Amino acid sequence: MLKVPEHQVAGHQALDGHLGPLIDDSGRFYKPLQSDERGSKEMSFYTSFSSNTRIPEHIRRFFPVFHGTQLVEASDGSGRKPHLVLEDITSGHSKPCVMDIKIGSRTWYPQASEDYIQRCFKKDRETSSLSLGFRVSGLQVYGNKESEVWKPERKVVKRVTGDKVSVYGGSTGILAQLLELKAWFEDQTTYHFNSCSVLMLYEKKLLGPKEGGSTAAEVKLVDFAHVTEGNGVIDHNFLGGLCSLIKFISEILTNPDEHSPRTCLQDSDKNDFPTENGAAESN
Amino acid sequence: MLKVPEHQVAGHQALDGHLGPLIDDSGRFYKPLQSDERGSKEMSFYTSFSSNTRIPEHIRRFFPVFHGTQLVEASDGSGRKPHLVLEDITSGHSKPCVMDIKIGSRTWYPQASEDYIQRCFKKDRETSSLSLGFRVSGLQVYGNKESEVWKPERKVVKRVTGDKVSVYGGSTGILAQLLELKAWFEDQTTYHFNSCSVLMLYEKKLLGPKEGGSTAAEVKLVDFAHVTEGNGVIDHNFLGGLCSLIKFISEILTNPDEHSPRTCLQDSDKNDFPTENGAAESN
Repeated sequence: MLKVPEHQVAGHQALDGHLGPLIDDSGRFYKPLQSDERGSKEMSFYTSFSSNTRIPEHIRRFFPVFHGTQLVEASDGSGRKPHLVLEDITSGHSKPCVMDIKIGSRTWYPQASEDYIQRCFKKDRETSSLSLGFRVSGLQVYGNKESEVWKPERKVVKRVTGDKVSVYGGSTGILAQLLELKAWFEDQTTYHFNSCSVLMLYEKKLLGPKEGGSTAAEVKLVDFAHVTEGNGVIDHNFLGGLCSLIKFISEILTNPDEHSPRTCLQDSDKNDFPTENGAAESN
Repeated sequence: MLKVPEHQVAGHQALDGHLGPLIDDSGRFYKPLQSDERGSKEMSFYTSFSSNTRIPEHIRRFFPVFHGTQLVEASDGSGRKPHLVLEDITSGHSKPCVMDIKIGSRTWYPQASEDYIQRCFKKDRETSSLSLGFRVSGLQVYGNKESEVWKPERKVVKRVTGDKVSVYGGSTGILAQLLELKAWFEDQTTYHFNSCSVLMLYEKKLLGPKEGGSTAAEVKLVDFAHVTEGNGVIDHNFLGGLCSLIKFISEILTNPDEHSPRTCLQDSDKNDFPTENGAAESN
């Protein structure tokens, strides 16, 4: 029995009869294969990546597990359609806090159509992609009260990260994982991850007299419909944006009360630090 | 007595009555202050940078020394005009090999005029900037014979770097210096170096029975007419391009016979790995 994911924060959503991803109870995520080039490109990537023996294991864990493709009933009622079968990253969570961050100051790639390039170019300039090297595509954050869910708004990144030292800092926190990913991007020249997102995810626990805080955080790369071949060149666009995100998070961890990250957010206030799809609906 | 520099490889040149930089015999380089915004921006940068106490000494050495401004007779005969007085980087060299590499996949900046942005955007796409994250703006390389000078042409970067392990490798070589610069760019959020170049320079010694090879190499950043404020964000555009250049050089040092850098150059062969101003004239 497939159902609509509760914690999806970006991308097409399978609500109200639209085509979108589905999940099952065994921890699998069914993503409709887009019928245009994007679908075949994303499948090519997963196929190439999962059979590439030169990917270190500590890097492979940053990618959703790929279980092949499968014909399943599409969410828009259009019948059985091919879907990518992936790991459901939010499986096992009841209150996952999720941030989807599209990496890179440029989300287009040279081989794309001129129309596509111009649309992306415009959007990159209108959002924080150009200034920060990344933009928030979607967000879902639970507060400390049973019913509290934070919606994307100004300075939300500061709020999210400011009080989450246990999630972002430490040897297994998000920052350490991003640094591991960075080391790989300084070296790998096989793939260029155009318009990919870094997903940061952790389970919110309610604060009680003796409990509270958050569980271990996970970092995942998602959305590979625009991956191109690296041809011996590093992915300097992704790497630059990743370094900017790393600096952003480490700055807040080091100086939670200083102004520089705030300045940086104010800079993008012109765009209201926009998310692409607004806040995720929460259960 | 001011004269036209012999070893300038990029930028406006003071030849045939044009306006361009001049040098004297004491090691100073006189760069005409462009009368538009570029001149004032470059001076603002040098003034800010030279008085900025937060720049570490080991980073300051990557920048030309700034001696203020001075009214001198302009090279185009238009009378006494204000010039930036800088360190002449090629001073003391008789056969300097110089490469001027414009860093970044994007050479424009958000505050520029729409016309300027569109022209840069077009050029970035036409050259290797977009694919490699940098492009060669100018080049002057001496061979082992008295009169031999290499002109920019296909695969020239491989030729230059392939047999220059003493220049590019080692603890004081160009690669080590670029890595030092990279560490600073991962941290500094004060300046965004739009459209700046890394200048790599070493003295060619003629090969004799017991001599030959090259002297210590230098790395300098030049051209600051488009520097903007960082506002708490790292310069992810410069950093990405710098990382790509570092990977490029280290790949050739590690595997001089492997194909990946060549592949990478062939990719930009469409553009003939163009320089912006052609080969420098040599003496």
